[in-house]
Amino acid sequence: MSENVRITLDEVRQLATDALLANGLSPEQTRAIADNVTRAERDECKSHGLFRISWYVSGVRGGTIKPDAVPVLSELAPTVVKVDAGGGYAPLAQEVGTDALIKKARSHGLAALAITRCSHVAALWPEVEVLAEQGLVAFAFTSAICFVAPAGGTKALYGTNPMAFAWPRDKGAPLVFDQSSSVSARGEIMLLQRDGKTLPDGWAIDPHGNPTNDPSTALAGAQLPFGGHKGAAIAMMVELLAGALIGESFSFEANELEPDDTKPAIGGEFILAIDPIACVAHNNRAAQIAHAETLFSKILEQDGTRLPSDRRLAARKRTPHEGVEIPRTLYNALLEMARP
Amino acid sequence: MSENVRITLDEVRQLATDALLANGLSPEQTRAIADNVTRAERDECKSHGLFRISWYVSGVRGGTIKPDAVPVLSELAPTVVKVDAGGGYAPLAQEVGTDALIKKARSHGLAALAITRCSHVAALWPEVEVLAEQGLVAFAFTSAICFVAPAGGTKALYGTNPMAFAWPRDKGAPLVFDQSSSVSARGEIMLLQRDGKTLPDGWAIDPHGNPTNDPSTALAGAQLPFGGHKGAAIAMMVELLAGALIGESFSFEANELEPDDTKPAIGGEFILAIDPIACVAHNNRAAQIAHAETLFSKILEQDGTRLPSDRRLAARKRTPHEGVEIPRTLYNALLEMARP
Repeated sequence: MSENVRITLDEVRQLATDALLANGLSPEQTRAIADNVTRAERDECKSHGLFRISWYVSGVRGGTIKPDAVPVLSELAPTVVKVDAGGGYAPLAQEVGTDALIKKARSHGLAALAITRCSHVAALWPEVEVLAEQGLVAFAFTSAICFVAPAGGTKALYGTNPMAFAWPRDKGAPLVFDQSSSVSARGEIMLLQRDGKTLPDGWAIDPHGNPTNDPSTALAGAQLPFGGHKGAAIAMMVELLAGALIGESFSFEANELEPDDTKPAIGGEFILAIDPIACVAHNNRAAQIAHAETLFSKILEQDGTRLPSDRRLAARKRTPHEGVEIPRTLYNALLEMARP
Repeated sequence: MSENVRITLDEVRQLATDALLANGLSPEQTRAIADNVTRAERDECKSHGLFRISWYVSGVRGGTIKPDAVPVLSELAPTVVKVDAGGGYAPLAQEVGTDALIKKARSHGLAALAITRCSHVAALWPEVEVLAEQGLVAFAFTSAICFVAPAGGTKALYGTNPMAFAWPRDKGAPLVFDQSSSVSARGEIMLLQRDGKTLPDGWAIDPHGNPTNDPSTALAGAQLPFGGHKGAAIAMMVELLAGALIGESFSFEANELEPDDTKPAIGGEFILAIDPIACVAHNNRAAQIAHAETLFSKILEQDGTRLPSDRRLAARKRTPHEGVEIPRTLYNALLEMARP
């Protein structure tokens, strides 16, 4: 029997939907999460695909997350909207805020969406990609459970604190990057732990602040920011934007409320959108976007380079007709989660 | 005879002023640049202090920079202002745009300033610090001459592309970071070259794409982005924001116009301001800013940590009464530049 199961993207969506509904997630929450998870599987972002469903379920079972939260939209300023996610997951809250954000960015040039009281365990790129598909430049920032040490420090204080950026393109999908402020994703360390392998140098420190190559010691200690103090500065910036700026918790405060770091935590997300045509004196959007293409061409002229979204977009061409492979253990676990 | 000369901050300003005026910079351009350079010396940011005056002068002598440019302010959108720097240096253009930017951020919540046709060879933190002193959260991005290779590539394509971020504090100066997208500032490599020292590993590659520790070889080759592909993604983002977004050149285009990379190039700067109180439902600015202080305290609780601005702010306390030291060769060169 094969260790993997090949399924279609429709089956991905159905597996996610059944597992979420069976665990009390409302139909609306379920639809938004299943859509996010399906997009991740479609793009072969495995760590945010069906693998994440057990996180979504554990948050509800553990009582941390409100399974039927109804996000509420409000206006904070001429360019700022807020969505109170009501203690639910982020994808539905993003959906509720996105139209208002787009409208404000188009009418004012810039706009922001502050999402509060949400749990963000999804990939960060989908929300900025949606905005760039509408012709906007977009940024997203979210913080999470304490896993990363500050520059020079020895103890976890920041989340892995991803930031995402999207730029609209004239043909096809936007250019998007979505990167954590840590050297590696936490999931990568967990996979090396599972496989009995060691960590590369520079990924993590032990609970005393000494370098370690042992995955278990690293998980008990702290991950390191990418690029030393520069990545740490980005991690701190993300804490401020997804925290104090929008009246939400810092990662260390979320940990104080929910010290179990295997479950989703409640926090904030900050999304910023810019209408590029508002930033130039002319009115030729096509020329502005075409100009950016000359940069992308120059990057790709050099051997060994690629654009940040290229791997995802290549997968996106294949998976709608080829389907995706997931481990049979995961497949069975999802069926199990879907049992009433 | 000492190799260094100790001078007061007033003398710093005077040396800068005399050298700039003697080389045809207008009084207004001179005042803005000398102010920026004096702030850099005050904070012991040596690579953007008096050391930079020869760059400012070379741009004028070489005909690249307009010495008497008069920046022109205009409105592009309800939240976006533009300053056409007219081919002059950035500091005066920033001054001309800052009030309008602050006013728009306060009335709308968010605002941006697009500076075009400017040469930015200054530190990037002063313009965001000024905004945070007015209670705003601020970002700045600028690109420059091609010095940094893209991820996986071997040839310089991006500028050192700094980004700066500032957060207002309740007491004293704002928290600010200003970091290039390269492992090191180009100025640091130039200082090591001047002093006959070698580069740390991982800073740069030679013209064939091989690692090098020699400053001169590195300056002829390419600098590397910090944190590998993640820093390269930031560098690319900065190119887009300071380039296509505001109708300005990418670094590689500036190089095509002005292939001599020892002289300042013309390009763009993008500055973004957020009024933090516009991003929360309450009206208690003091509580919002106090909340951020809890994060800073948590960082400083750990031995070995510091906040990004701490070294600059410590110098800022000392230098107004102690003065600063500069190499005698630099001092003499400045006097020479000031001769009619």
